[in-house]
Amino acid sequence: MADALIHGTKLVQIAIVVRNIEKSAATYAKFFGVPVPGIHETDGVEKTHAVYMGKPLQARAKLAFFKMETLSLELIEPVGGPSTWKDHLDQKGEGVHHIAFMVPDTIAQEQVLAANGCATVQKGDYTGGRYSYVDTTKPLKVVLEFLQNT
Amino acid sequence: MADALIHGTKLVQIAIVVRNIEKSAATYAKFFGVPVPGIHETDGVEKTHAVYMGKPLQARAKLAFFKMETLSLELIEPVGGPSTWKDHLDQKGEGVHHIAFMVPDTIAQEQVLAANGCATVQKGDYTGGRYSYVDTTKPLKVVLEFLQNT
Repeated sequence: MADALIHGTKLVQIAIVVRNIEKSAATYAKFFGVPVPGIHETDGVEKTHAVYMGKPLQARAKLAFFKMETLSLELIEPVGGPSTWKDHLDQKGEGVHHIAFMVPDTIAQEQVLAANGCATVQKGDYTGGRYSYVDTTKPLKVVLEFLQNT
Repeated sequence: MADALIHGTKLVQIAIVVRNIEKSAATYAKFFGVPVPGIHETDGVEKTHAVYMGKPLQARAKLAFFKMETLSLELIEPVGGPSTWKDHLDQKGEGVHHIAFMVPDTIAQEQVLAANGCATVQKGDYTGGRYSYVDTTKPLKVVLEFLQNT
């Protein structure tokens, strides 16, 4: 086989964009019979160094995670200005925004996919790691997120 | 906690509806560096007893599975008449159609969700098991499939 263009098969998250995370998190908790998880807001750009479409990301997001046996379901509510999360909500409504894979090196991953026609639309740091969203919608019909623990 | 409305947390599939499964399966194989999997067509309604919106399902689908570490990515190309798969393609285009959980009893699962406002849109048998798609789009923003090994 040729080398894989995607550097991992460990699918760790399915992320769903919602309009009201408090309401959706409570509903998920009810449906799965689990406590409502903590909802936290992403840090500002001075800490995340986040970039959206090549410019500093001014938006934030509120996040909540539901741990399933095999992976996590992540709820995302966009907060503030333009972001890939808000784009999805504005253009497609609530629903699955991306699926996430662990990779050893997000930069190397981005480069390989860029060379294959898939641009990075948003990226940033979080405590303990970094993420990149790559627009693989055309070939794979879904956006991929790549996560690297640093 | 109250009893869970969903009888399992083993999330085993993410399913993506595509227009051309041969093309998409080849692309997925290239991106993940794996062999192109077999593509098989679902059986006819005389064998699957499949029901769509309360009537015998006349449609079929072509399916391909990519096994990841934690779960499977399933590609689905609708074939023939009306189905939940074709509805998705017609109304939303290619993309994530559902996520699937293993449950001990799809019938009991359907009943609980129906009592909570979520209707079963399509169901049927396959060799070794049965499936039900329940429209949980309003509360959970995504359709759920329930799988039971029989």
